[in-house]
Amino acid sequence: MTSSSVGEVSLADLPIRADLRGRSPYGAPQIDVPVRLNTNENPYPPPPGLVEDLAEAVRRDAAGLNRYPDRDALALRADLAAYLGHGLDSARVWAANGSNEVLQQILQAFGGPGRTALGFEPSYSMHPIITTGCSTEWISGAREDDFGLDPGKAIAAIEEHRPDLVFLTSPNNPTGTALPPATIAAVVEAAPGMVVVDEAYFEFARSGTPSALTLLPEHPRLIVTRTMSKAFAMAGTRLGYLAAHPAVIEALLLVRLPYHLSTLTQAAARVALAHREALLGTVDELRAERDRTVAWLRGKGLKAADSDANFVLFGEFPQRRAVWEGLLARGVLIREVGPPEWLRVSIGTGDEMAAFRAALEAVL
Amino acid sequence: MTSSSVGEVSLADLPIRADLRGRSPYGAPQIDVPVRLNTNENPYPPPPGLVEDLAEAVRRDAAGLNRYPDRDALALRADLAAYLGHGLDSARVWAANGSNEVLQQILQAFGGPGRTALGFEPSYSMHPIITTGCSTEWISGAREDDFGLDPGKAIAAIEEHRPDLVFLTSPNNPTGTALPPATIAAVVEAAPGMVVVDEAYFEFARSGTPSALTLLPEHPRLIVTRTMSKAFAMAGTRLGYLAAHPAVIEALLLVRLPYHLSTLTQAAARVALAHREALLGTVDELRAERDRTVAWLRGKGLKAADSDANFVLFGEFPQRRAVWEGLLARGVLIREVGPPEWLRVSIGTGDEMAAFRAALEAVL
Repeated sequence: MTSSSVGEVSLADLPIRADLRGRSPYGAPQIDVPVRLNTNENPYPPPPGLVEDLAEAVRRDAAGLNRYPDRDALALRADLAAYLGHGLDSARVWAANGSNEVLQQILQAFGGPGRTALGFEPSYSMHPIITTGCSTEWISGAREDDFGLDPGKAIAAIEEHRPDLVFLTSPNNPTGTALPPATIAAVVEAAPGMVVVDEAYFEFARSGTPSALTLLPEHPRLIVTRTMSKAFAMAGTRLGYLAAHPAVIEALLLVRLPYHLSTLTQAAARVALAHREALLGTVDELRAERDRTVAWLRGKGLKAADSDANFVLFGEFPQRRAVWEGLLARGVLIREVGPPEWLRVSIGTGDEMAAFRAALEAVL
Repeated sequence: MTSSSVGEVSLADLPIRADLRGRSPYGAPQIDVPVRLNTNENPYPPPPGLVEDLAEAVRRDAAGLNRYPDRDALALRADLAAYLGHGLDSARVWAANGSNEVLQQILQAFGGPGRTALGFEPSYSMHPIITTGCSTEWISGAREDDFGLDPGKAIAAIEEHRPDLVFLTSPNNPTGTALPPATIAAVVEAAPGMVVVDEAYFEFARSGTPSALTLLPEHPRLIVTRTMSKAFAMAGTRLGYLAAHPAVIEALLLVRLPYHLSTLTQAAARVALAHREALLGTVDELRAERDRTVAWLRGKGLKAADSDANFVLFGEFPQRRAVWEGLLARGVLIREVGPPEWLRVSIGTGDEMAAFRAALEAVL
């Protein structure tokens, strides 16, 4: 093959896996606009004290960067366990580069060719992407019209398909819907394999919402995943984690890439955990802003889903793309995701939400 | 299931993938001893100027850690391309959390159920582990007795198996053997699918050894992988990368987890690249120490493989475990890896290698 013909090679000419053909890379557009309300980030930057401590931790650890990190990240896992409470310890907690990698490791250990995973949609779109990426069949179950989950129907779907894994998302993305603990418990009882409860947005749930962590002592096949990307305001650090029975962690050790968590990631996550009071101090403000946003949208005659997360799904717009583009033209980036006529707005600062409201009024 | 019976659940009770049953987690023992010569780290810590610049970069970027990182890591990829030269640019370079993740992404894009990967062993043991972890069949080809690769036999193996991927490792781990460019070119010409040349140790090769990067302009199915863990003395940063045709990078975008590379990893790798002269300044010293180690081992009547890397494979010991343990008892940790009667020692500082020699003399 000559050099000039090499230049004409395209993706379609390469021997990629058959099920990848024609696909596009996942991800929201990364557009530099004044008001970014599209990826459910926490709008408040880390406090100066955290920045100072992190720079200091890096200065301390950088002198050893020629060495591999602690492969088991034991100190970080102990800190995460202490944050979670519920009697957890480092043997029951695992961490990776974002909850996406945590989920991929779960699929690598418990999924694979000939195995299936069931989720109830609309939900986090990475669940089916990671599932099929690990050569596992995705079975799409349905949520109700109000985005909740009917326990009877969920159990019927489990009994029909006997999936190797079940995904529950609570609070759910992109709808914001939290599941009642009884629903989670019923699913865990009925599932023949592993159950993953994705609690990425748990810290934003309305007071009194219990975590699926309460079910762990009774259920060795339950996995509860979390992230530091949302409430902890650490999206740039990429730290996801999970809690489960120690045998589950042993299973993940068989599939994790050795030294997957860098020295810097481990250090940054530990510094953030030490500053958790300040970081999580933004959560109340975001919850209040979220509830105001829901009320305002409804006041405008729109539908807005009840939300226990740091975003609100609203609609319905027969031409949602036009609404999304109109907002973008006014410097406000939200997310075109979820059911066809709905849009999702992440909760930003008070000023950012004022800009969102003004832009939406102008568009409508 | 009651709480007490949950405590008795073991890994064997969980529904892990069948091929994981009975396996142990990969990884060299992380033992805290005075002389660590087991994982091919660069023994020289980063220079103080790098540590200062890194702390400063973290202080600058930490204020934005509530936001996700640049998903495409474009600035880092441009810097890596500039380092590699060969007319590369950011469209032809990709990076991930260690070359292990780079390799996993390659398998996710080009391997999978029903596909095969061929490697020539002994070689880097993560190649078969990552291959089978991605539900791809591993075909074990053989190197010659001198750990080199016979081009005729390699081509015959390719024609027999028609693998979807071929792995070449040059310089090879754990043997240190570099492949002549003509051998790599012959394999690339013969292979029906993708060819991965793992050049993790390339910077340590003896002067004049050409990189497989020289073959890229003619071969859109060739991928050359590198790492900052070895010559760059950045094992704790976890930054692996590759160079390939832009269409290959497009394929990897379909399988990469979004935002896989943290803000801190991108910043640290860029700082290290800015300090590359100082970091790579240790390479000459390590090469000289390596050559002295080979000569000393042979002087003692032992076999030592020619090495173009920062380690030496030596033997033969009918009881290699006893030799490994004897060294460990004397505070020197090396690696029990490779052909049954051989051991691998990473090249450390002059003092560390003196400790290794003294310990080995005592053991023998």
